[in-house]
Amino acid sequence: MSRRSGAAEGFVPIASYSITIRAQYPNKPGMLGRIASAIGEAGGNIGAVDLVRTNRANIVRDVSIGARNDEHGRCILDAMRAIKGVTIRSVSDPVFLAHVGGKIEIHNKTAVTGRGDLSRVYTPGVARVCMAIHREPEAAWSLTVKKNTVAVVTDGTAVLGLGDIGPLGALPVMEGKAMLFKEFGGVDAWPICLDTKDVDEIVATVKHIAPGFGGINLEDISAPRCFEVEERLRKELNIPVFHDDQHGTAVVVLAALLNAVKIVKKEIADLRVVISGIGAAGIACAKIFQSVGVKHIIGCDSQGILYKGRKAGMNPVKQWFAKETNQEGRKGALSDAMAGADLFLGVSGPNVLTADDVKKMNREPIVFALANPDPEIRPEEALPYVRVMATGRSDYPNQINNVLCFPGLFRGVLDARAWEINEAMKVAAAHAIAQCVGKGELSEEYIIPSVFNRAVFQRESRAVAEAAYASGAAERHRKVHPVYI
Amino acid sequence: MSRRSGAAEGFVPIASYSITIRAQYPNKPGMLGRIASAIGEAGGNIGAVDLVRTNRANIVRDVSIGARNDEHGRCILDAMRAIKGVTIRSVSDPVFLAHVGGKIEIHNKTAVTGRGDLSRVYTPGVARVCMAIHREPEAAWSLTVKKNTVAVVTDGTAVLGLGDIGPLGALPVMEGKAMLFKEFGGVDAWPICLDTKDVDEIVATVKHIAPGFGGINLEDISAPRCFEVEERLRKELNIPVFHDDQHGTAVVVLAALLNAVKIVKKEIADLRVVISGIGAAGIACAKIFQSVGVKHIIGCDSQGILYKGRKAGMNPVKQWFAKETNQEGRKGALSDAMAGADLFLGVSGPNVLTADDVKKMNREPIVFALANPDPEIRPEEALPYVRVMATGRSDYPNQINNVLCFPGLFRGVLDARAWEINEAMKVAAAHAIAQCVGKGELSEEYIIPSVFNRAVFQRESRAVAEAAYASGAAERHRKVHPVYI
Repeated sequence: MSRRSGAAEGFVPIASYSITIRAQYPNKPGMLGRIASAIGEAGGNIGAVDLVRTNRANIVRDVSIGARNDEHGRCILDAMRAIKGVTIRSVSDPVFLAHVGGKIEIHNKTAVTGRGDLSRVYTPGVARVCMAIHREPEAAWSLTVKKNTVAVVTDGTAVLGLGDIGPLGALPVMEGKAMLFKEFGGVDAWPICLDTKDVDEIVATVKHIAPGFGGINLEDISAPRCFEVEERLRKELNIPVFHDDQHGTAVVVLAALLNAVKIVKKEIADLRVVISGIGAAGIACAKIFQSVGVKHIIGCDSQGILYKGRKAGMNPVKQWFAKETNQEGRKGALSDAMAGADLFLGVSGPNVLTADDVKKMNREPIVFALANPDPEIRPEEALPYVRVMATGRSDYPNQINNVLCFPGLFRGVLDARAWEINEAMKVAAAHAIAQCVGKGELSEEYIIPSVFNRAVFQRESRAVAEAAYASGAAERHRKVHPVYI
Repeated sequence: MSRRSGAAEGFVPIASYSITIRAQYPNKPGMLGRIASAIGEAGGNIGAVDLVRTNRANIVRDVSIGARNDEHGRCILDAMRAIKGVTIRSVSDPVFLAHVGGKIEIHNKTAVTGRGDLSRVYTPGVARVCMAIHREPEAAWSLTVKKNTVAVVTDGTAVLGLGDIGPLGALPVMEGKAMLFKEFGGVDAWPICLDTKDVDEIVATVKHIAPGFGGINLEDISAPRCFEVEERLRKELNIPVFHDDQHGTAVVVLAALLNAVKIVKKEIADLRVVISGIGAAGIACAKIFQSVGVKHIIGCDSQGILYKGRKAGMNPVKQWFAKETNQEGRKGALSDAMAGADLFLGVSGPNVLTADDVKKMNREPIVFALANPDPEIRPEEALPYVRVMATGRSDYPNQINNVLCFPGLFRGVLDARAWEINEAMKVAAAHAIAQCVGKGELSEEYIIPSVFNRAVFQRESRAVAEAAYASGAAERHRKVHPVYI
């Protein structure tokens, strides 16, 4: 397991926390050395150093620096400012620069450069297309954007790990999501950031805007409202509705588990699973585990194990856990649940698990500690005692990343023209993702493919479409007869 | 006026009603001639004739044919089918082909091809952008799509001249609109087709989805609901709301009028105006006329002149007309109103005006007969008696086309970051459009520029932005301080 310690050992500043500082300093020997040393002492990682201009008196340079985070960036800046003669002219930041003006735009599939174009894509020609759809609404699936379009809907209440930062604050994430939909799935997704947290209003709004979309991706809506929103929309709409925080996570976790059990040579049906964190992801993971045959699941929240009859801190989702899992009726703390467990799945918060807890697990334990950015247990602590470990972070092996799921899944859903996303389709997606790690490649440190392996999305979309047909969520030979002429 | 009769004289099939028919026929002399004659006799205009394949027995050709409309296309098809030996293999249609799969798509401004990209546009980097916006919501105007994005919102109740064809049927028009927004204004517009006709629900839905947009373009919502929807949204939202069917039409009509009065050498303040059609466009035109100083307006509906005290068939908009126009208190039919009028503006229906009505007008009358596709009076009938005539059709001179307004207007609105679109901005847009017809170019047949004159949109957007600043609808030096680092 020594190979994996490399990544964890030292801190590696990542691209998202890089800044470019434009500094002016007196044109005399030793200045750049002093600046570079100050940056180094502050822990900054110097990248490109470009000369902007120079004259007898002064030199201006752009210094690109990798930093850990905002605060670290400010420390580096302060360290530079502290050098006599150095003036900071400006600070630019690739992350903010990448966001200026927004990250997505509309693109016309054909140019409109003459009257002929105009009469085809707009009046008067468009009237015939409108009437064809009016006569036969199914034709909208071939003659409009509906076929390839997903609304990415949020109310901004549970954005990343940032909490309730509102619809505007959530917009950059939704735009990012739309980018990934396009880049990896060829899906046209548009962000819809809702100025309401009321379940009835969210449901009504999504229903009202649904006609122009082929699917709804709910995103970063806090629990427990997210459950009701999804459930009602699934019932009331005739297009697929998918809450990514629940099901996207569940699909990728299952994919990782399918490969992990190959390494530890255990049967799914025999696994004893402990889930820490009874939120959107926790319940979705429990359900998808059950649907592939996992029998023994124990759910834990901050008050410990969920069991039939527990009274404290319950809600409908926890009631479900109390009723549908933990058939042995175990009670106690998370650490009690860990005795004999084969899989720990953390979708909760930092540092809830100790090395001693891990030591109580069954032989060759699997630990998925997905809390972000700080996992339920630091890999450095857990690794001596586990066989397979995964986190939500990109700087450790086995990153459980939702990006592996939603673009390929929706690609398959839209290709099949499915009217829902059922458990069979999610399980098919998980299998397809897992199968992208070849037999010869599978190892403790490689149970899940990279998002930059484009084969994942192709495989996934085909598997999802097939599962949609097989499970009755789509018709293979649905006929559309727009009355052309 | 002889020049203009050419366009009106014969029927010219236009590109939007072209079809390509793939026909198979026996490989023997005279067949193509027979086919071509049949098409010609049916009134079809033969374009390209391509050979698809040929063998000893048969020939297959694609024949492109300009037709008047669907029915005419079917007649031509029947005429070909009637020829012995001819088999129709397929019919394709450039209008429908241009719509397959939708006309717009999402485009990522930057590629996402590696982990660095991912961490900049998505997690973890995006979290800093989210928090910057959370701390300072104004930053959304520089760091998200909001700055350049307009929702094109419809309920599908008054689509083109097609009436209430529902949100799905309206989608191709909204997509077309989005294309024109992008092509002519560089504005990113996304269609939102609402599955409700209820005013309260429309208002609530638009308010709920507003955060992600920089403006709202209401479209094809039937009167009188459109008035209340626009009025309430204008009050309750802090982004501009614009009902194009009202104000887009008013702006372009005013642009045309500003140039028409130069030709007839009359003062705006002296004009006697008759408006036929008291719907969305009618009232907006009356109001914009008043705002540039027109004093004498008479509104007419199907029951005749609107006057103070009229009881029959009234509604709030007609009450406004009765109160705010027709100060002389004239009564009677449209034809009574026409006596002494300088301008007839028709935004009503086909053939409500007769040549005798036109003869009653003041010297050098102006007739804008905008009902589409059949104007209030056929240009052929009116032309002998009018000095300047405009219609809504592209096959006559002086087409009053909303496309001249909304892309440039919203470009200016978004550039200035205006929070509303007021009368001064609309009038500025009209003047800018009018000024695109140079002094040397102005004539009876050229009072309004072509939409393919790109200078229109530049001029218009600058004028609108300036008017926004001058009228207090935007701040010239609004400062945005996103806390970058």
